[in-house]
Amino acid sequence: MSTELPLAQRFVLASRPSGAPAPEHFRLERFTPPLPQAGQVLLETLYLSLDPYMRGRMSDAPSYAPPVQVGEVMVGGTVSRVLQSQHPRFHEGDLVVSMGGWQTHSLSDGSGLAPLPPDLPSPSMALGVLGMPGMTAYMGLTHIGQPKAGETLVVAAASGPVGSVVGQLAKLNGLKAVGVAGGPDKCRYVVQELGFDACVDHKSPHFAEELAQACDKGIDVYFENVGGKVFDAVLGLLNPQARIPLCGLVAGYNQGELPPGPDRSGLLPRALLTKRAKMQGFIVSDDFGDRQGEFVAAMAPLVREGKVKFREDVVQGFEQAPQAFIGLLEGKNFGKLLVKVV
Amino acid sequence: MSTELPLAQRFVLASRPSGAPAPEHFRLERFTPPLPQAGQVLLETLYLSLDPYMRGRMSDAPSYAPPVQVGEVMVGGTVSRVLQSQHPRFHEGDLVVSMGGWQTHSLSDGSGLAPLPPDLPSPSMALGVLGMPGMTAYMGLTHIGQPKAGETLVVAAASGPVGSVVGQLAKLNGLKAVGVAGGPDKCRYVVQELGFDACVDHKSPHFAEELAQACDKGIDVYFENVGGKVFDAVLGLLNPQARIPLCGLVAGYNQGELPPGPDRSGLLPRALLTKRAKMQGFIVSDDFGDRQGEFVAAMAPLVREGKVKFREDVVQGFEQAPQAFIGLLEGKNFGKLLVKVV
Repeated sequence: MSTELPLAQRFVLASRPSGAPAPEHFRLERFTPPLPQAGQVLLETLYLSLDPYMRGRMSDAPSYAPPVQVGEVMVGGTVSRVLQSQHPRFHEGDLVVSMGGWQTHSLSDGSGLAPLPPDLPSPSMALGVLGMPGMTAYMGLTHIGQPKAGETLVVAAASGPVGSVVGQLAKLNGLKAVGVAGGPDKCRYVVQELGFDACVDHKSPHFAEELAQACDKGIDVYFENVGGKVFDAVLGLLNPQARIPLCGLVAGYNQGELPPGPDRSGLLPRALLTKRAKMQGFIVSDDFGDRQGEFVAAMAPLVREGKVKFREDVVQGFEQAPQAFIGLLEGKNFGKLLVKVV
Repeated sequence: MSTELPLAQRFVLASRPSGAPAPEHFRLERFTPPLPQAGQVLLETLYLSLDPYMRGRMSDAPSYAPPVQVGEVMVGGTVSRVLQSQHPRFHEGDLVVSMGGWQTHSLSDGSGLAPLPPDLPSPSMALGVLGMPGMTAYMGLTHIGQPKAGETLVVAAASGPVGSVVGQLAKLNGLKAVGVAGGPDKCRYVVQELGFDACVDHKSPHFAEELAQACDKGIDVYFENVGGKVFDAVLGLLNPQARIPLCGLVAGYNQGELPPGPDRSGLLPRALLTKRAKMQGFIVSDDFGDRQGEFVAAMAPLVREGKVKFREDVVQGFEQAPQAFIGLLEGKNFGKLLVKVV
């Protein structure tokens, strides 16, 4: 068994940001990959997924998952290759999806490791359209959004890995799909490549009016993944019995303290009441984690046949992870953001 | 056919309040009751129901129902007696539930008239425990709240016609029921008479701490009918996958403009996300109007057997309606507020 392993690298949380994270909140460390004990595997990271939820884990405010401790490796999903195995189910060379974290090598006892869906053109798809973001889109839209043909759906971050799938699935279900994205390039892609009916640029000074124009019959499903001013503009356009699946609030992730007044906290409950609307938060792994099979069975053919398209934004080199992640929170990525490690 | 009708009275909306309504926003008018034409009935109001939703109808802000126009009769549910009938389905002397409004006499073409549930000890019950408030409690709790034995439920206005039924039904379903009410008399009634496990006085300076103490296992169902500071205190106590049926926001009904900052509008979406919680507004007549039979079949036996108790706050005399309604919005009533007209 080889012991000639390269020196491994990892990013740990150096300190907690109060607003937007900066490079100094991450610390690059070198370490010698440990040897797997009985029942363990040593994994080599091929791709690291960068996702907005990671900002939440950098804070110790109460959230749906425990925070990363200062000095600990940053959490993250990975596609990894088994380098060494002392585990009966995994063999050297196997590719797996893992929560390997921001590191080039990780140990696992096998829990949480999943084989890749079969026949992937690229293993990175297991972190995007056929991974957690795609499953978030599919489960939230199907089981909370309950889309009906003829209705209007709005989703923000529409060129991203969740929003792009939400809108394309809505179209396949006969809905009108209106995207929101930042800048003309992303908006053009969302309409011309992904087939949305419209896409509104949230950087436009007339964003709210343009969204209202695009949604001339109101909004029946708003798939919420950003919050902030997009949500403000959506609220007044909701139709009776609207549904709002809620999987993220990236616009607020960097918010340190409450913004100045007036206090608009009464507006959302009032809108939900007067529109008889439903808003429901979900975390795909907690609420639908046991339905991976349903998801892959529904989604893989759609991707294979080109009915659901996707785009990846691949950053080369492990040490680029912090800068790429900081850009993600600013909307600088265009498509599913991944770090190609090997 | 008698033409010796007494002079009738009605309250019309004199002007729109911007904050709390005052007596000058209502105008008492006298009128001669019209004779019913073919297909119509003339009704005499026995009981007028006073309910928080009426405040919303006095404003012309967008809501779930069109506003009362200035100069129009105030809307309201009534128990009425048929005085004269030119309608094949109704006969002189019949008792009906009607949206007769704030007036001693009304005409109807029969649409929206319903017979009283059978065997009522008092016809007024058709406006409370076996009427719209009771049905709001039953439908919201059952179909949105989805209560499970062992869970904890919180409801405000717990001595009122909706809250009292919500809590008692929760107890019958094996939940812990915690009420919120204003003042020691109401709280005592909620625990000792209605059988809630606890009731917290929202006038207490330590309200939030006392609510947290009473809900030592968190909150699984919050039946929302008031909003405001009760909701603020509830938010931090929600358990994962909590459900929030939302039927009213009486605390905000008199709010003219937005309160001063900071802007806390991000807190609710964040709580729904991190707790994977659901909040759903409903209007019982719109969302469950066709399920009256289900409601009466379930509820009438519980009331008859004393398993669901109720309390009425009956004001004598039609001309008392505005003052009683103003008091309702201040929490001065104790039980279902009714005006006994005849």
